[in-house]
Amino acid sequence: MSSTASRDTAADPIDDLIVDVFNRACPSRQTMETVVGKWGTLALVALTDGSYRFNALRRRVDGVSEKMLAQTLHALERDGLVTRDVQATIPPRVEYTLTAPGARIAATLRALLDALEAEIPAVMTAREDYDRRH
Amino acid sequence: MSSTASRDTAADPIDDLIVDVFNRACPSRQTMETVVGKWGTLALVALTDGSYRFNALRRRVDGVSEKMLAQTLHALERDGLVTRDVQATIPPRVEYTLTAPGARIAATLRALLDALEAEIPAVMTAREDYDRRH
Repeated sequence: MSSTASRDTAADPIDDLIVDVFNRACPSRQTMETVVGKWGTLALVALTDGSYRFNALRRRVDGVSEKMLAQTLHALERDGLVTRDVQATIPPRVEYTLTAPGARIAATLRALLDALEAEIPAVMTAREDYDRRH
Repeated sequence: MSSTASRDTAADPIDDLIVDVFNRACPSRQTMETVVGKWGTLALVALTDGSYRFNALRRRVDGVSEKMLAQTLHALERDGLVTRDVQATIPPRVEYTLTAPGARIAATLRALLDALEAEIPAVMTAREDYDRRH
């Protein structure tokens, strides 16, 4: 679960970075918290359908507040996983689209949600059994 | 992203369940919140190494508090993704192990973390660029 990143410039602090999300000090933790959060996950997977405008994405990610979706998209944009394109129309049209790294991560999130959905009947049975016993 | 679960017993409320994690009312949302939370993700992926005792798992999932790990494992146990085995030794030895559904979900989480770690150099560069511009 760790990989070494090396680049050309010797002075770059990203050189020889040991990436390990299990280490709380690794910068991957911060990205993980956005990506694997409930809203980050649903937004990234929704965007695998194609670009979305803010309000359409908000309808797709049922239950998210305007504030939480804006925060989530901002964090994803900052990490280069989503681009925010403003078109010079009146009113301006703002669209969110996955970048190449965002699309690679979103593909694994989609596989996760598919696996999760497939297990839900077993999960619900387990939950009923557990609650009967406790 | 949706699948229909059907089982033998017609009276069972789990029959004909439409599982859609994008729908806030779907029971899969609750499981998703545990599984895709930071601690749920790290605990499930750690358990793909094999069984763990509580304190060893806590050391592996760097940064988790005792309370948060206990809550996370309890939710995962209730949903049938993890089993908690108490061995009648003195003192009792408590071990956590993935169930079959838990292992299937954890495999997709491991693929997610691998993809995330692979993108971290690009993410860090994007973040630096973003912060310079804003």
